[in-house]
Parts: sequence; C-alpha cells; structure tokens
Amino acid sequence: MDKQNRISPAVIRRLPKYYRYLGELNKVGINKTSSRELSEMTGFSASQIRQDLNNFGGFGQQGFGYDVENLRNEIAKILGLDKKYKIIIVGAGNIGQAIANYTGFYEADYEVVALFDKNPKLIGTSIRNALILDADDIEEFLAKEHIDIAVICTPKSVSQQVAEQLVKCGIRAIWNFAPKDLKMPEHVYVENVHLNESLFSLTYYYNQMRKKENE
Amino acid sequence: MDKQNRISPAVIRRLPKYYRYLGELNKVGINKTSSRELSEMTGFSASQIRQDLNNFGGFGQQGFGYDVENLRNEIAKILGLDKKYKIIIVGAGNIGQAIANYTGFYEADYEVVALFDKNPKLIGTSIRNALILDADDIEEFLAKEHIDIAVICTPKSVSQQVAEQLVKCGIRAIWNFAPKDLKMPEHVYVENVHLNESLFSLTYYYNQMRKKENE
Repeated sequence: MDKQNRISPAVIRRLPKYYRYLGELNKVGINKTSSRELSEMTGFSASQIRQDLNNFGGFGQQGFGYDVENLRNEIAKILGLDKKYKIIIVGAGNIGQAIANYTGFYEADYEVVALFDKNPKLIGTSIRNALILDADDIEEFLAKEHIDIAVICTPKSVSQQVAEQLVKCGIRAIWNFAPKDLKMPEHVYVENVHLNESLFSLTYYYNQMRKKENE
Repeated sequence: MDKQNRISPAVIRRLPKYYRYLGELNKVGINKTSSRELSEMTGFSASQIRQDLNNFGGFGQQGFGYDVENLRNEIAKILGLDKKYKIIIVGAGNIGQAIANYTGFYEADYEVVALFDKNPKLIGTSIRNALILDADDIEEFLAKEHIDIAVICTPKSVSQQVAEQLVKCGIRAIWNFAPKDLKMPEHVYVENVHLNESLFSLTYYYNQMRKKENE
C-alpha cells in the first residue's frame, strides 16, 4: 500500500480547492505562490496547507514558496486528472441535463457517453454529443461499453434500485445527485452531492452579516 | 463582536455535515453519540470534532457523549436554520428548475418566492408554488419584496451582470451555480457551488480502487 492510501478524506477534499485556486493564479500569470497566499484564497490556515501538501512529499522550498504550474500539475496527477473517464448519466431530467452540460468535465478528459431515462419524449434526443437512451437498455449497454463513472440523477424513490443495478453491471464509482444516501458494498465509491452544506454555510454568513448590522 | 465571528470558515463548513449526520442518528432513534462515532460517520478526526464543537461552548459532557437532538438543535440555531428565508432564483433553465424543486429547502423555513427568466415560453409558468417571472421585472420586484437569498442559475456569460443588478437592489446573500467566480463588494456573501471538488474527489478514490486491484 502506498502512502496515498492513508491520506485522510479531509485532505483529499481540500486538494481540488488548491487545484482551482492555482488555476486562477496561473490564468492571471502568477508563477509563484506561498502557503500564506493560498491561505488567504482558500480560508484554510497556512500550516494546514503546508501539512496537506507535505502528505505528498511537499512541492515547495522553504522561503521560496511553490511553483504554481508545477504544484497544479502534481495535484492533477494525484487526483487522476491526467487520465480519461467515460461517464453515463442515469436520469435525464433537470439535474441530469444540467450535469450533461456541465463545463467542469472539460477540466480533464471526462466524456459523457450517454444518458438514460424512461421518458419516451426524451429517448432518442441528445445533449451535446450524448444520446439519451432507454433506461431499460442500461444493462445491455454496460455489458458492451466500459464506463468509469455513473451519475445518478433519478428521483430519490428509485436511486437505490438504480445504484444496485449499476453495481451489478460493474460500476464502482457513483456521483449521486439524488438527495438520499445510498447503501453500497465496500468496493463501490459513492460521492454524494449535498447542496445543504453549501446552503447552510450561506445561511450562517448571511445571519452573521445581519447581526453585525444590528449591533 | 461575538465569538462566532472569529470561527474559521472550515469549521462553519463542517457544521452542516454534523447536522446532517445527527439528523440521520435521530431518524433511527439513536439519542446519544460521541466524537468517535461522529468521526466514523464524517471522516473528520474525533479531536477535530471536539475542537469544532468547543468553539460554541461545547455541548458534550466528558465521558457521556453528546445528546443527539440537543446538539442538532444547537447547530441549527448557530447556522440560523430556526429562521425564515425568502429566496428568488434567477435563471429558470435546467439548474434553476432543479433548485426550485430542491427538497433541502424543507430542512428549514426557506421559501422560493419566484424565479426569473428571459425565455417567453417559461414566463408565466410555475414550479411548485413559485411563478416564473420576466427577468426584466427583477428590479421592480425587489423594490417591493424583501428577499434574503438570490440563487444565480444563469449562463456564466451574464452571471456577473445579474449579480451586480441584484446587489444594487439590496441583495446581500448569493448562492451561485454559474461556473464562474463573482466579483462582489465586501458586504455581499457569495456561496459558490463548485461541483469540481466533488467530481475530483470521486476521481481520486476511483483511481485508488483501480490501483489497489492492480497491485
């Protein structure tokens, strides 16, 4: 087992943030950064950031800071953004269609191969280059095509059932937008999108602002 | 300034997670929990959790753990989930419509009052109890109605312009789904939904699984 297997989920979750902010620095032509600067951008402490990046051997030099492009490339490699991923989206309603149009897929080589839905009005139409196929044909499709990631955008009433079907067909990475936790075997990784966490943070800061004004 | 103003963004961001997991414990009838149990559920370390909750005076008793419902209620109060919020959604495309249907709004007293769009086919229709109004009427609408939170679901090409218009009309809390950072004055709080962070974590763990299998 390599060292990366022991890295805490919290660190892994911060890496995409570093990646994004490094991209922004890169875009405006800044080549060098420091844990202090990254701290101001991300809201994490500078020591936290140094510690996080040390997990991977560290990329900075004491007193010289980090090379923006190099650090960004290293994080991309750690996250696996230097590889190709084939994706299907199950459920082509509002969320499914929004995800099919999601520009974040261009950050790496993610390809939406197909969407699946039960709605006859949707089947046969396409979004960007991906066809919407009949949900009844998922198993047949997965028997032929190797798919890396399945996105679940179904109503929550069927999300567990859909996930089990996908896993039966060999899917081991699920991006779940249905607002219900999935019960999955150990060998399947589920990433839930919990918009609540974002909404509640917003609510907190909105209240803090209101309180300050009333002081 | 009260103590809560000095709490780091990272702590605030973890509270909704605790809130959600405490809700799950509550739902299955568990009344007591510990930082160790919360650690297993959330992936944060037990000492991190104790430290986070201590920011708010701490709710547990050494050796007795936390009362699930009490702790959940206290976190709700800290986040402001015990209050009412009026919301508008600007942009009634796929993402806007998905957000209008978002069940997370039921977790507290969030009310979607209206959506706004430029598409004549959408104007006059409604989602749940919220009408889709003409985007040209936003300013007039905001002059009459007090709105707490605006959700931006427009294309990124107009998101900055829309945000500036909202702020001019008194909006100070923005939930931004357009995939572009907004430049806003200090007195406005923007919460960006960055799906990348979730997708990249999924990508990392998917690769870890594949690596393990190849070992």
